[in-house]
Amino acid sequence: MAAPSGSTCRLMERSVRDRAPPLLTDMYQFTMAYAYWRAGRHQEPAVFELFFRDNPFGGGFSLFAGLHDCQLFLRSFSFSEEDVEFLRSVLPPATDPAFFQYLRDLDCSGVTLCSVPEGTVVFARVPLMEVSGPLAVVQLLETSLLCLVNYASLVCSNAARFRLAAGPEKRLLEMGLRRAQGPDGGLTASRYTYIGGFDLTSNVQAGFLFGIPVAGTMAHSYVTSFTSLEEVWPQTLAAVNGDSDSVDVLSLTKGWLNRVCELLGSDPGKIREGECAAFLSYAIAYPHNFLPVIDSYSVGCSGLLNFCAVALTLFELGYRPLGVRLDSGDLCRQSVDVRRVFRLCSEHFSVPLFDSLLIVGTNNISEQSMAELNKKENEINVVGVGTHLVTCTKQPSLGCVYKLVEARGRPRMKISEDPEKSTVPGRKAVYRLVDAEGHPFLDLQCLEAESPPEAGLPLQCYPLGRDDSAVSVTPAQVACLRLEVFSKGQVTQPLCSAAETRAKVQVSLQTLHPRHKKLQEPDSYTVALSERLHNLVAEIHRGSSSDSSFLLAN
Amino acid sequence: MAAPSGSTCRLMERSVRDRAPPLLTDMYQFTMAYAYWRAGRHQEPAVFELFFRDNPFGGGFSLFAGLHDCQLFLRSFSFSEEDVEFLRSVLPPATDPAFFQYLRDLDCSGVTLCSVPEGTVVFARVPLMEVSGPLAVVQLLETSLLCLVNYASLVCSNAARFRLAAGPEKRLLEMGLRRAQGPDGGLTASRYTYIGGFDLTSNVQAGFLFGIPVAGTMAHSYVTSFTSLEEVWPQTLAAVNGDSDSVDVLSLTKGWLNRVCELLGSDPGKIREGECAAFLSYAIAYPHNFLPVIDSYSVGCSGLLNFCAVALTLFELGYRPLGVRLDSGDLCRQSVDVRRVFRLCSEHFSVPLFDSLLIVGTNNISEQSMAELNKKENEINVVGVGTHLVTCTKQPSLGCVYKLVEARGRPRMKISEDPEKSTVPGRKAVYRLVDAEGHPFLDLQCLEAESPPEAGLPLQCYPLGRDDSAVSVTPAQVACLRLEVFSKGQVTQPLCSAAETRAKVQVSLQTLHPRHKKLQEPDSYTVALSERLHNLVAEIHRGSSSDSSFLLAN
Repeated sequence: MAAPSGSTCRLMERSVRDRAPPLLTDMYQFTMAYAYWRAGRHQEPAVFELFFRDNPFGGGFSLFAGLHDCQLFLRSFSFSEEDVEFLRSVLPPATDPAFFQYLRDLDCSGVTLCSVPEGTVVFARVPLMEVSGPLAVVQLLETSLLCLVNYASLVCSNAARFRLAAGPEKRLLEMGLRRAQGPDGGLTASRYTYIGGFDLTSNVQAGFLFGIPVAGTMAHSYVTSFTSLEEVWPQTLAAVNGDSDSVDVLSLTKGWLNRVCELLGSDPGKIREGECAAFLSYAIAYPHNFLPVIDSYSVGCSGLLNFCAVALTLFELGYRPLGVRLDSGDLCRQSVDVRRVFRLCSEHFSVPLFDSLLIVGTNNISEQSMAELNKKENEINVVGVGTHLVTCTKQPSLGCVYKLVEARGRPRMKISEDPEKSTVPGRKAVYRLVDAEGHPFLDLQCLEAESPPEAGLPLQCYPLGRDDSAVSVTPAQVACLRLEVFSKGQVTQPLCSAAETRAKVQVSLQTLHPRHKKLQEPDSYTVALSERLHNLVAEIHRGSSSDSSFLLAN
Repeated sequence: MAAPSGSTCRLMERSVRDRAPPLLTDMYQFTMAYAYWRAGRHQEPAVFELFFRDNPFGGGFSLFAGLHDCQLFLRSFSFSEEDVEFLRSVLPPATDPAFFQYLRDLDCSGVTLCSVPEGTVVFARVPLMEVSGPLAVVQLLETSLLCLVNYASLVCSNAARFRLAAGPEKRLLEMGLRRAQGPDGGLTASRYTYIGGFDLTSNVQAGFLFGIPVAGTMAHSYVTSFTSLEEVWPQTLAAVNGDSDSVDVLSLTKGWLNRVCELLGSDPGKIREGECAAFLSYAIAYPHNFLPVIDSYSVGCSGLLNFCAVALTLFELGYRPLGVRLDSGDLCRQSVDVRRVFRLCSEHFSVPLFDSLLIVGTNNISEQSMAELNKKENEINVVGVGTHLVTCTKQPSLGCVYKLVEARGRPRMKISEDPEKSTVPGRKAVYRLVDAEGHPFLDLQCLEAESPPEAGLPLQCYPLGRDDSAVSVTPAQVACLRLEVFSKGQVTQPLCSAAETRAKVQVSLQTLHPRHKKLQEPDSYTVALSERLHNLVAEIHRGSSSDSSFLLAN
């Protein structure tokens, strides 16, 4: 698929600026920026890293997403006069007025972003982004970059897990907009669940902005808004072949309804007239796209019978209805019952296509119920997922952090009393080591100055999160994990469309060994430091590095 | 506080249009709209209700929020030419072109919205909004109204629970932007957590758009970016009284540091020089607003000592530092230790204000840890809350639904096989009955045509969710719960500022009986139907109403 057109790109850039204006950040970014400026340190070179400490959902991996928006955010980063005036009103009155002139002129022309490509499988404690540039500017970017990456990566990873739970066959529809955390939560969810492996969205704006296929037919309200067959208008439909004049579909449907009831031994007295009217009316509007929701009253006593009658009418006129939606109850059992009726109709009325009609299931699907559904006998072709997918109920936030690792060319480290919260100092190169079967098996962090590991050669490294001992590994292939994607005010790698990034996700997930993809108790993937980086950490911990010297008070 | 100015209102209206454009909705709204239009039913009068089925977080109440945005959304609702062209591309090719002309001319001039006022305490199964107007239009509004109400009400209710857990004394700071579900999730959280009872936000854009007080000082990166006292520049500060020239604060601080170490018996050799430099540099930039984060290395061995020295320097020059932030570990215990040191310094150095310095605590606070913190001995004055507040980890979505209750003047009802999913038909009036102590005790839904209940007179009603028996109640006061807030294309009630709505929340929560406000196992509030409404439901269930007649197939 082609990259987004110029006009789409501009639209998305405007959309990012509207969604993530430069004031949408934490106040302390500005108070720190002023303190740096006041101390004359604002132009000092600094390097920050963005990473998360634990894979989400108790899983073995995450997907990295949100980069596209970060690139557009950096490109358009600047403060309006109105922004600056607001900042003047909330910073202390004694703030030097020259600082506000500095803010007026600020942009990201001095910032370089190296990043893992969007849509890559990633792991906890690997620095995904490296943001370098003038200290005050790269500090100011923290909250925005975190905000753009955290939820995008979270919901994309969640979608990938739903896809793994569902298996490759079923088509997956995202339909969570109404339950999302704000309108943009919904839009972001539609975009990144598609990237993570969903096929369709109900969200029209996501189709408009990102080219995601949209789908949707009817709600229960449509069904319950009809009372009687008198409301059906027009009551005629032309046959596909066009030979005949318009046909009275009301009579035709009534006839089919009797035959369907006879075939199934159903009681015609329990069939809802309003539902029949709703289906027929919808079929007349969409003879090529008929897919009603059939559980507004009772699937077995009414909805399925009405569907079959209207669908048989459409078939008789040469149309091909799409199928049905089930929105409550035990979806697996119902889908089996519905398919059985489809097969009966197919055989009895000699309509071969009737048994391959789609069955769409939507009923508060979670990752767990998706996995269960995949194990049980069922005839569902499309699954719609809303709340649990978009709000990530299992873990509604990803904890990406943004940490200073170098200032003025010297490594910096936060040494916390909580060892989990300590950081790995210094500017790094990150390599992904791949085994002979083509599976990545270790992500290696080195100091930037080190020469890269070589394929076929053994190397010593220190896995994170274990005891302090070294391991020796020999990669069959070595890939550099990050690329420069923004520099000198320009996006330096082509921006990918949602469909392109979705394809990358598929490839990245396919190469990952199944043991890391297990939804429950996956094998953990190894992330390690090079010997030199490991030594630097040890030095700083011993306090022998100049990074965090002790004050020998006079 | 005054209502937002005209320019702020326009800004917010633009912001709502950007955040919730009319295409940000489910595709099936358009497919249904076309089917209605095709059947000539699009102008038929229809009434939808918006409500939720369970109070969030297992609680006894919810707060209703998002109305303000809904009103602005309705006022600006219209499709651009670009929107219509996109819809043409996703609807079936056979769609009648005249439908797109209909969409071009569409607006909400025919829509009336009656709603509970924003910031009101509300309960499950009470219709909070009634949206009436042309069938196709009010159907099209569904997803947008749900999206604007669901998360706003959820996060506002979550904030109210955090406030109840914290008690009335502590100041509460929302700081969740980086972990929010998308940029707008963060902005919406800042706005509605303030409305729900928080005092401050870290989110600058929320200050800019909604007038919420913003706060923030420094991150660990600021501290770790400093290495030595040589980086402090300037190294002087003028005293407040202005009598003296600029004072060498570096020497002054070193002197205080020695005295503090002596007083506390601390080892000066363990004090981090970079941290001291960071604090001093910050104090020089913000002598009136000094509040550093003191746990970048070790609170007891370094951070607290550095703070005391710099703070004493500021006091000596006539400034009044603000306090400290603790961002890790056991906040209660640490705050007690810190306060003890503050008291010692206060007494020993005769600085009375030293013992009333603020202690800000921030460390992944949940509702439960807030409640525990409130029970344990602690000296925390301000609590910052992020992830658990904004993403509502305990329940990340509210399940508001939007159901058709009347079409063409006749009641409509969805009769589900799941009785919980059945709806209450007909256009209603909703009254809140108040007891002699001023506590609301029952919300009563009546048919619109019924005369309202009268204070002091007993009435029969049927509580929802119990068996089918009637109860007799006598209200001391009766309030009409909903107001017309939008009609004929105009907002008909003044739009409230965030501060005004926040005040309403306080009043509404204060009148609620404590038994409904318990965070765990609250008493459930009674929601009931009038006798006539109860009878209508029974009639429709028996199938004797014309609403959902059975089709007696010929």
